[in-house]
Amino acid sequence: MQNIEDRLAQLGITLPPLPQAMANYVPFTFANNLLYVSGQGPKTKEGDLVRGQVGKDLTVEQGYEAARLTGIQILAVINGALGSLNRVKRILKVNGFVNSGPEFRDHPSVINGCSDLFVELLGDAGRHARAAIGVSSLPQGIAVEIEAVVDVHPEGS
Amino acid sequence: MQNIEDRLAQLGITLPPLPQAMANYVPFTFANNLLYVSGQGPKTKEGDLVRGQVGKDLTVEQGYEAARLTGIQILAVINGALGSLNRVKRILKVNGFVNSGPEFRDHPSVINGCSDLFVELLGDAGRHARAAIGVSSLPQGIAVEIEAVVDVHPEGS
Amino acid sequence: MQNIEDRLAQLGITLPPLPQAMANYVPFTFANNLLYVSGQGPKTKEGDLVRGQVGKDLTVEQGYEAARLTGIQILAVINGALGSLNRVKRILKVNGFVNSGPEFRDHPSVINGCSDLFVELLGDAGRHARAAIGVSSLPQGIAVEIEAVVDVHPEGS
Repeated sequence: MQNIEDRLAQLGITLPPLPQAMANYVPFTFANNLLYVSGQGPKTKEGDLVRGQVGKDLTVEQGYEAARLTGIQILAVINGALGSLNRVKRILKVNGFVNSGPEFRDHPSVINGCSDLFVELLGDAGRHARAAIGVSSLPQGIAVEIEAVVDVHPEGS
Repeated sequence: MQNIEDRLAQLGITLPPLPQAMANYVPFTFANNLLYVSGQGPKTKEGDLVRGQVGKDLTVEQGYEAARLTGIQILAVINGALGSLNRVKRILKVNGFVNSGPEFRDHPSVINGCSDLFVELLGDAGRHARAAIGVSSLPQGIAVEIEAVVDVHPEGS
Repeated sequence: MQNIEDRLAQLGITLPPLPQAMANYVPFTFANNLLYVSGQGPKTKEGDLVRGQVGKDLTVEQGYEAARLTGIQILAVINGALGSLNRVKRILKVNGFVNSGPEFRDHPSVINGCSDLFVELLGDAGRHARAAIGVSSLPQGIAVEIEAVVDVHPEGS
C-alpha cells in the first residue's frame, strides 16, 4: 500500500496536533496492543466546532462533513499516540453518536463521513466494526461525536 | 453442556446468513481473541425491521421481542465470523440502545430480550456485562440497536 | 503512591458491597487482563437513586455529584471483582451517559464527577480515555449511567 503520509497529502488533509481533552481525562489510553481513543468532535481547519442537530440545523451532507472532520481529529489522536499512522494494524471499532431528534433515520450516511475517510486513507486496515446511534445532545452542542478502538502494530515491528 | 446447534433448534431459532453492514463498515473485526460485533437491529424472519419508539409505538413486551430478534442477528454475525458458536468463550459486553423518549424507564426489561437469549443458548458463556440506555433515534427508525464484544476460543482449541 | 484504602478513607468514601445487576446480566466480565464493568447508576449512601434530567430537574453541580456517586459504584464493582483496588493498572475507558434534553451542552462537567474521583483516588492509573454523550432516557430515570473498561495487574503480581 501507498505511504500513508503521501495519501494524507493527496486527500488534502493536514493532521492537527494531538487534540487535548475537554476535561479531566486523556485523549487516549493503551493496553496490550489496543489503543482507546476518547470521543472526538468536528473541528474545522479554523478551529471552530460544527454544532447543531443533524436533520434540523444541518443536512445529512453537512453531518457527513462533520463526521469526516471528526475522523481527522481521531487520526490526529492516533498519530500523536503512535508517532505514525503506519503503526495502525486495524481500526477495530467506531462508535458514532449523531446529535439528532426522534424523526432522524439516516445515521449511517452521517457516520460514513468518518468511515469513508478511514478506508480511503488506510485501505483494509481502515475497515471497522461500527455502531451509529442518535443522541439527544452532545458536549458544546457539537453535531457528532465519534470514538474508536484501534489494533496497533508493536513498536519496531 | 448441550450442543449449541441442538439448543438453537430447541429454541426454534434458525440463524440467518451473516448480516451485511448498512454502510461503509464491516459486520465484525478481530483482535487477539476479541471479536467486535457491529451494532445490529431487529429483523424478523420475513426480513422486515421492527421500528418505532419503545414506550410509545411499541410496548415493553414488543421491545423485548425486538431485542431478542436483534440478539439473533448478533449470533448470526458471531456464527459467520467464527464458523461455529462453539468457539464462543464468553459474551463479554453488550450495549443496548433503546429508541425511546424522555419518560421511558424500563430499558433493562427491553434489553433482557437479547440477554435472556444469550443465556438460554450459551449458559454461563452467555452471561455478559451490559449497559442499556435510551437514545433519541436509531438508523431507519429501528426500535433497538445492540452491539457486543465476544471472547473467543482460539481456532482448533 | 499512597495506599488506596487510606486514600478512600481520606476522601470519606466507603465502598458498598458489589452492586448487583438490575436484570439478566452480570456486574463485570474478564478477558485476558481487561475488566468490563456494566453500566452503573448514582446511588446515595442511603441506597436511593438520583433521578431526573440534568439541566432541567438537576443542576450541573447535582449532575457532577451524581456522576461521583456512580464512580463509587464502579469502584465497588472493580473492588468486588479484583479483591482490591490495588490491582487496577489503568482505568482505560469511561463512557458517560447523561440524561439530558436537546439544549444541554455541559456533559463534560457532569462526567468529571466520576473522572475526578478516579484521578483523586488512583492518580495516573485513574486517567482514562472517555466519551460523554447526552441520552434521551435512562433505566429507572437515573440522571447518569457510566460504564468502564479497566486494565488489571495479573493476580499475585
